[in-house]
Amino acid sequence: MSRVVRTEPLRGEPPVRLPGDPFSVVVLLRGYAEPEGAGGAVRADGSVTLILPRASRHREPPSEGGEAKTALEEAARGPILVDTGGPWARERLLEALAGQGVAPVDVTLVVGTHGHSDHIGNLGLFPRAALLVSHDFCLPGGCFLPHGLGEERPLRLGPGLEVWATPGHGGQRDVSVVVAGTALGTVAVVGDVFERDGDEGFWQALSEDPAAQERSRKRVLGTADVVVPGHGAPFLVVREAWNPEAEGPEARDEEPQETPDAPGDEEPQETPDACEGGPPAPAPGLGTEV
Amino acid sequence: MSRVVRTEPLRGEPPVRLPGDPFSVVVLLRGYAEPEGAGGAVRADGSVTLILPRASRHREPPSEGGEAKTALEEAARGPILVDTGGPWARERLLEALAGQGVAPVDVTLVVGTHGHSDHIGNLGLFPRAALLVSHDFCLPGGCFLPHGLGEERPLRLGPGLEVWATPGHGGQRDVSVVVAGTALGTVAVVGDVFERDGDEGFWQALSEDPAAQERSRKRVLGTADVVVPGHGAPFLVVREAWNPEAEGPEARDEEPQETPDAPGDEEPQETPDACEGGPPAPAPGLGTEV
Repeated sequence: MSRVVRTEPLRGEPPVRLPGDPFSVVVLLRGYAEPEGAGGAVRADGSVTLILPRASRHREPPSEGGEAKTALEEAARGPILVDTGGPWARERLLEALAGQGVAPVDVTLVVGTHGHSDHIGNLGLFPRAALLVSHDFCLPGGCFLPHGLGEERPLRLGPGLEVWATPGHGGQRDVSVVVAGTALGTVAVVGDVFERDGDEGFWQALSEDPAAQERSRKRVLGTADVVVPGHGAPFLVVREAWNPEAEGPEARDEEPQETPDAPGDEEPQETPDACEGGPPAPAPGLGTEV
Repeated sequence: MSRVVRTEPLRGEPPVRLPGDPFSVVVLLRGYAEPEGAGGAVRADGSVTLILPRASRHREPPSEGGEAKTALEEAARGPILVDTGGPWARERLLEALAGQGVAPVDVTLVVGTHGHSDHIGNLGLFPRAALLVSHDFCLPGGCFLPHGLGEERPLRLGPGLEVWATPGHGGQRDVSVVVAGTALGTVAVVGDVFERDGDEGFWQALSEDPAAQERSRKRVLGTADVVVPGHGAPFLVVREAWNPEAEGPEARDEEPQETPDAPGDEEPQETPDACEGGPPAPAPGLGTEV
């Protein structure tokens, strides 16, 4: 059993690159939220993260072991963008993508963690991508497909790559993307489940459902080694081994932070792909070798 | 006292133009939601509506009668777009705007009724506009300003022009825009408060909070003469004069549909504009004479 001891900022200016296999994570733009002037004005934008499959992944055959891939797994074969920032971040986003050798047409899936303007302001840059904005999944062109995402049922995007239902901040349909197998372990890209490292005491005021968000935060801290929050730098989650028996009766009363299943251990979700034209074609090229 | 007798589709292919003073309403793109194939796939996009002030409005001085305008009222001085459709609607949206003589740079305010991908997919076309997406209001550049919008407190955008809090479909923060003084009376642009005319029996399954949405629907039907729904053609609201006394005890038990205050009767909201650079400049030109 382990428990979270503390969190600490991950040092380094963006882009922050966490190599991994089969997926690397690159935090392209760091989110922020800064008071401005008097009267409660806040200048803000959301973090933007790129998930890159290893270069050879796009050459893998569409089906593995005879199992048909879901439409979401097909959409996740190329570069995946998690959140886009607000419209004012357009040029910085394009530059940051170019810096990773990725053009907008290369992105095959855009995940919007929730529908706030500082997170989904640039969806229009990616008309060839499938979209998963909150719980709404659609193929390019606007064909929406149902899926069974829920707090107890993550969606599989690929090996060690999942979408979790993490309600609370924006409402009941916020999502996070969880990536296993990076150099620093499991990375959770969480939108505003966490505003930033050290947001205890103020995140609740920004939450539509603090009780749900508290659950989401606990789940994330139980698995992630790195968290990419919505309005701050990525941060590390530091745990220690914990034996409540060794610490006596008081420790046995403390709620354990068990490490839940790592991404990839659950059964994959089936997503119908009954749209005219079928699933989107694989991404033409990945740009950055991983 | 009056009560709603029925609703009926407003005939005419888009763009559907409802001239008015001081604001005209043009439904640029009609929303739709059509089942496709088997397995529950739906091809969909949201309605897109333009609100145009009379041509002379942009030449009016910034302050009227010594009262400072709120930042939201300043943002509402030029063409206002309500919802943008999904990214796949980009070209149709640009053409439809051009057909009204409006370029994206002319739009001073974009209102997103709620944060679903088929309604806010093209925010990035309007980097010079202020945004009100659900309850989040920001100036161009991403400076977010607080306001007091609530179900009991609409926000004033201009004479006879308001934003209403109409929760339910997307969650607690959905909004609608209500425009008085058109040739057909008061127009309510409601996002998915109404999916389409005749949506009784299925809108609830698409709602995050059906009880809240039922309240929102009743409020809209109590005021609007025309409703622009999210996934269908605009429709008329037909009422008749009603005297419960004349109809006996049973009628007196029926819940009356009183006509609430028309837009413009409530006290205006004060919105601080304490962002560096102040409120945005007035729109450079309106294109279409009203």
